[in-house]
Parts: sequence; structure tokens; C-alpha cells
Amino acid sequence: MSASDAYPEALQRLVAYFKRLPGVGARTASRLALALLDWPDELLAGFGQELAALKANVRRCRVCGNLADGELCRICASPNRDRSLVCVVEVATQIPVFEASACYRGLYHVLGGRLLPLEGVGPENLRIAELRERLGTGEVGELILATSPDVEGEATAHFLAAEFADTGVRITRIAAGVPVGADLSYADAATMARALGGRRTFD
Amino acid sequence: MSASDAYPEALQRLVAYFKRLPGVGARTASRLALALLDWPDELLAGFGQELAALKANVRRCRVCGNLADGELCRICASPNRDRSLVCVVEVATQIPVFEASACYRGLYHVLGGRLLPLEGVGPENLRIAELRERLGTGEVGELILATSPDVEGEATAHFLAAEFADTGVRITRIAAGVPVGADLSYADAATMARALGGRRTFD
Repeated sequence: MSASDAYPEALQRLVAYFKRLPGVGARTASRLALALLDWPDELLAGFGQELAALKANVRRCRVCGNLADGELCRICASPNRDRSLVCVVEVATQIPVFEASACYRGLYHVLGGRLLPLEGVGPENLRIAELRERLGTGEVGELILATSPDVEGEATAHFLAAEFADTGVRITRIAAGVPVGADLSYADAATMARALGGRRTFD
Repeated sequence: MSASDAYPEALQRLVAYFKRLPGVGARTASRLALALLDWPDELLAGFGQELAALKANVRRCRVCGNLADGELCRICASPNRDRSLVCVVEVATQIPVFEASACYRGLYHVLGGRLLPLEGVGPENLRIAELRERLGTGEVGELILATSPDVEGEATAHFLAAEFADTGVRITRIAAGVPVGADLSYADAATMARALGGRRTFD
């Protein structure tokens, strides 16, 4: 018998929902649900409403596929972004990582995944037709491929580079190498190979 | 700029609610909120409803103060419990710990805290009058004091033992000592003092 079996049913149902979240086990789920018992009613009601309305409130940007409040995401809607740059990412949740670097002022394009032929994910399952349409406007000067630096991400980047070679748009790939601040004693062989292969003249 | 600033507002509001939970920082809150975006609508709605209705659905047992679905908690309502035993705990969330041991078949009494004179928590702030009433029925033969084995818990246990000395009910205290499975190399001095003081004849 687990400890939470002694809880009232309403609490057990709430614990069951928390347990569905990634990284939340039985013990954490109980702790979170019990903590909520001490919340004031209006906070609980607000939390519940945000959850229930989440999918209705969070939309996908019509242009880039990013998470959005309305038709356009805040990046596509901003007048301060460089519209000649488009950075291709696999999923929308990678965009905040780029934004946090504060080094990129262009736009994004969310593929919605990467090519996984063995699992039946082909080019037609990704937002590639939408990307061709964006490149067709002539506004884009550079397409930055920012898929993950692993086997599937590299394969997807190669596919995109070949697919859009005919557009005349400059196609680049983000650098792979040793992460900033890392202790080289623990760097893996594949990363070191990329870091050596991508070396530049010291200036 | 933190990564979650790039999220739609509805997602940021949800992240803010998660951040109010104990042990949930900005990064975990974002991870949990993003995971919910992939949930089917009906699950999200169910989760939201459980949250909003939590306080209405989880009540306090009229007899012992435990968390309950209705008037009585499932322990007080059970016909299989020994009604001559009452175990006094500080808060309702400690009851599942006793239940998980599967060694106790009596009832409980939730004090609702412990004596903290410096913070203004006196006997009148705890469910002590309710406990006297239960002992007055003559049904209870033993009162087990299971407050925490720290300074305030010991003081509360001593207060209760003195308070109910006149009832003729047998009053006991749970054993303190070295936890089962622990490596004695790391036991603290106070625990070792209790373990030695509470030693019993080996039989």
C-alpha cells in the first residue's frame, strides 16, 4: 500500500494528474497536491482555469509556427526584427533558448520535428512547404539551419540545404564544438572531432 | 531576459502558478507548463477542474481532523479499526506514513500543529478540546503520542501527557532511536543518546 492510498479520492485524482507530468514521481506528485490544499480558493480557481484554457489560449504563429497569443507570435509581430534572417528550429520550445542569448534579431521557422524515416516522419510531415513559401517572397537573405547537432538533426539539415539550394538564399549551419565554460577533460569524442574540424585562425 | 519571457502570455501565467509550488523553480515550472501543451484537451480540462474544486472536495474528518471525502475520513469510517487506540499526530499528512507501515490498526487524532509559544500557538489553537471529548467517551484505552521527535514535538507530547493524566487512559510515546537500515557512522549525537537511553534487553 502506497502512502497516498490513505488520501481522500479527490486528492488521489489530483495526484494522478501530477504524476503524468515529466519528471514527477509518486512522491513529488503527493507533495505538490498536498501543498495546493494550503492555497487560497481564488488562486486554485485561477490555476485551474489557466490549465483548462491553455490550448485555447496558446496558438501557433501563422508565419513561423512559434507559440503565439494570437495570429502572429511576438517575434513575427515585432517591428524590430531583421526579416532577412530566418533560423530553422525543430520545435517552438527551442526558440526561447536563442532569445535568451540576446544575439539573434532575425525571425524563426519551426519545422515541427525532424526527419525520422524509420518512424515514418518524412519531409511532408514537417513545415517545409511553408518554409519554401517564405523563401519565395524574396525577403529572406539567409537561412540558418539550427537543427540539433546529432545524427537526425544533421540529416535534416543536409536535407534542407539540398532542398533549398535552388532558391539562391545563403544557407548556414550553427557551429558545433566545445560548450563555453566546459572542462575539456570530460568532452566526448564526437564533440572534440567537431571542435577540431571547425577550428578557425586565431585573430 | 529569461527564456520564458519569449512565451505567449497564457503560458507565462501558467508558469507563474507552477512556480508557487514548493521545490518548483523557474526551469521546472517552464518544463511542466510546456509538457501540458501536448496533453489532450479533455485531460487538461479534468486537471483544471480537480484543481479548482480541490478545497470543496477535500474536507476534514469530524472526529479526528484527517483529510476526508465526506463527514468522516476513511479510517474513522472503517469497521476494521481498533477504536481503543488513538494515535496523536501533528498534521493530517503524517497519517499516510503510519498507514504505509501497515502496523497500526487504531484511529488517529490530528492536532493541527504543535505548541509554539514564541509564535503564539498555544493549547487553544490545537485540537486538544476535541481530543478530551474523545477520551471522555470511555472507548479509548491507549493514547499514543506521535508528535515529532524534536524540541517542539517533545514539549507538545509532555504537555498532552500532563493534560490527560487525569483521564486514566494509558499514554505512550513512539520510540526514538536509530532509523532502520541507517549506517551508524553518520548518526547524530542526539539520536544516539535516544537510542542508548531507550535500549531494551536483548531477547
